[in-house]
Order: sequence, then structure tokens, then C-alpha cells
Amino acid sequence: MTSTTTVTELYAAVQLHYARQVQLLDGCRFAEYAATFTADGEFQHTPGQPAAHGHDGITAELTRFNKRFDNDPVQRRHWFNMIDVRPREDGLLDTTFYALVLTTRPGVKEPVVGPSCLVRDVLAFEDGELRNRSRQVHHDQMS
Amino acid sequence: MTSTTTVTELYAAVQLHYARQVQLLDGCRFAEYAATFTADGEFQHTPGQPAAHGHDGITAELTRFNKRFDNDPVQRRHWFNMIDVRPREDGLLDTTFYALVLTTRPGVKEPVVGPSCLVRDVLAFEDGELRNRSRQVHHDQMS
Amino acid sequence: MTSTTTVTELYAAVQLHYARQVQLLDGCRFAEYAATFTADGEFQHTPGQPAAHGHDGITAELTRFNKRFDNDPVQRRHWFNMIDVRPREDGLLDTTFYALVLTTRPGVKEPVVGPSCLVRDVLAFEDGELRNRSRQVHHDQMS
Repeated sequence: MTSTTTVTELYAAVQLHYARQVQLLDGCRFAEYAATFTADGEFQHTPGQPAAHGHDGITAELTRFNKRFDNDPVQRRHWFNMIDVRPREDGLLDTTFYALVLTTRPGVKEPVVGPSCLVRDVLAFEDGELRNRSRQVHHDQMS
Repeated sequence: MTSTTTVTELYAAVQLHYARQVQLLDGCRFAEYAATFTADGEFQHTPGQPAAHGHDGITAELTRFNKRFDNDPVQRRHWFNMIDVRPREDGLLDTTFYALVLTTRPGVKEPVVGPSCLVRDVLAFEDGELRNRSRQVHHDQMS
Repeated sequence: MTSTTTVTELYAAVQLHYARQVQLLDGCRFAEYAATFTADGEFQHTPGQPAAHGHDGITAELTRFNKRFDNDPVQRRHWFNMIDVRPREDGLLDTTFYALVLTTRPGVKEPVVGPSCLVRDVLAFEDGELRNRSRQVHHDQMS
């Protein structure tokens, strides 16, 4: 019973963490997105690029990545789904889930769909709040 | 602990409310969809149109909106995701989430995708059931 | 209170069951996918085809279905969403939800989107784990 309750609570907490995290990302609030990682958090989202580390490193990487949209205004939306959550012995959580990026341009009702990705996170509780210790994004078109 | 339990319960309740609500909408059961709002509920879904109010007003607005499909049979599906839920001091819930409309036509396997939207709801419990006090839909292509 | 807790626990359990189930399916681990059904489970996913029954039957049907990709490498992703869960008197669960298939080909960033489906499952607990007693997939383009 306790373990059922725990899995239930974890599952809602993970979903809420991701909802808030992607809304920061898609709102281009990169420093706040970076703050959803632990201080030594690792973020690897672009194939062939080295991972970014720490709040400043993640913020810098997202700023760099999003320069491509400087003269191409878009509203991006990251959708996460089919989230598997597995608690580890050490209290960390392994999650594996699907991610899809939708990119809408002004005046165009149909978003560009893709890439479709598989994401592997390690999450940690800090002062009762979930944080990403790491994120590895695998792009399906690179299988 | 109580607050964790509460957030967990709220999160599942909100997801279930939305699942049932959109299945009514996509089943063209507009009066039943309207009944998922409070009696004085406000529904604003079309950019530039005034909000509809109350069960009759919401039903009428959806009937009007869907006339465009009278000679164009479609199966629409509303997908909600990345749901942020924030309880307010007054017992109401603020939610912010992504919505995507998928429109399938007979014999065509690939749905039309879009618009992609950001939705802000205010939810209230009535006799233990969640209801929408309001819904504001923002279309990403109108950013 | 107990019933609220139960619905909450059920909702998380169903989401987790589906997350793990589709990751097996999309990983082409068909025997393991089949094992997420009860021993006498029924699986009906292709319009006009008879349902498959039991672990061996479901594994064989998925192997047959996926032969079409033998010379066309793809990464498929099944997305489930808007999940309605209704416990029955007999302890089984009726679920109704939306499903969308995304198919990504090597080097192509935009997945093929579709079909969009409505799925009706009956789920059972076996030794504390959810299993599908049945699954009926309805394709929206066949409405």
C-alpha cells in the first residue's frame, strides 16, 4: 500500500515537473529551465554536440541553440508522453519517455511536427522538488 | 505529506476531467461538454470572437462553430498535454496546458495537425466533481 | 476519501502500464508486449482483421504486421492520451483513450503522423500488475 501510494505520488510529481519545465523552455526562459536541473546537472539534447553542464552551461547552450530563430519567429512546444518512471535504490528516479517538438510560425495554423525523440532522464528530489540530474535526448531519425 | 497527497489527487482528477471533457467535445456531444463547465462558466476558444457564457451559450457556440463541418465529415481529436496545475487560496485551480487539434477525414490516414494552442483554465469542485469556471484558448499561430 | 485515493492510484497505474507497454511495442519486443495482456487476452488493432488471442497469438500477429517494415526501417512511436478510466463492479477497468502513431524514417526529421485512433481496453489486475484483457482499436479515418 505504501509502495503503491509512493509510485502514485511520484508519477504525478514527475508529470508536474515536466509540465512546468517545458513551459519554461517553450517560453524561452532558459535560465529558469536550467534551474530545473541540479547544480551539476547534465543536458545533452543535440546529436553530436557535447553535453552542457550546470545552470550557466545549460542556459548558454539553449541561448546558442535558439539563435537559429532570431530572424524566424516561432512558437515551439515540447510534448512529453508515455513516461516510464523507475525509482532506484539510491532514491534517484530513472525516467524514459517520448518527446515531440511542434513548431508554429505566425499565421500558419499547422505546426511543423518533429523531431520525435526518446528521452532518458535521471531525476533527484531537492528540498522536496524534483530536479533533473541529467537528460539525454535521442532523435528517432538518427536511429 | 497531506499536501503531497492533495497535489497527487488533484493531478489525477484534472487529467480525468479533461479526458472525459474532450471525448464529449470530439463526440459532438456539445450540451454534455457545456455541462462540464459551471453554470456561469466562460468559454473563449476562437480568436477574435467574444466568449460564450453558461451551458446554453457554450452549446450554441459549439454548434455554430461546427457548422463548418456539415458538408465535410471529420473526426476531430483534441489532445491536451503538459498540464500545470496550481491550487489557489480560494480553492479554485489554475491550470495551463498545451492543446493540439487533430482532424481526420474519411479514408485519409494522416490527420491534419493543428492548431497548436496554449490553454488557461480555472477549475472548481462542485459536489466533488471538477468543472471549468473558465477556459481561454490562445492559438500559437497568432503569437 | 478512500474512493478518491483509489481513483488516483488507478490513474497513475494505468498511465505507467501504458508507458511501459508502448515502449515494448515500439522497441519491437513483441513477446514482451504480448505478456502485458492476460493469458487469454484479446487484441484487435487492424480494421477488418480478426482479433489475435493469447500471448502466442498476439506475438504472431505483431510479427506479421511488422513484416511491412522489413525493407523499410522505421522507428514507430505510439502515443496514448486523454485516458478515461472507469472501474467496474467486477474489479476490471474500462479505459477509453486516443492513440496516435508517429513513424520516423532514418534521416527524416518530420515523422509521418497517423493514424489517429480511439482505443477501448479492458484491464485487469494480476498479482498487483495491470494487464490487458482486451484491446479494440478504432481508426478515425474509417469512421
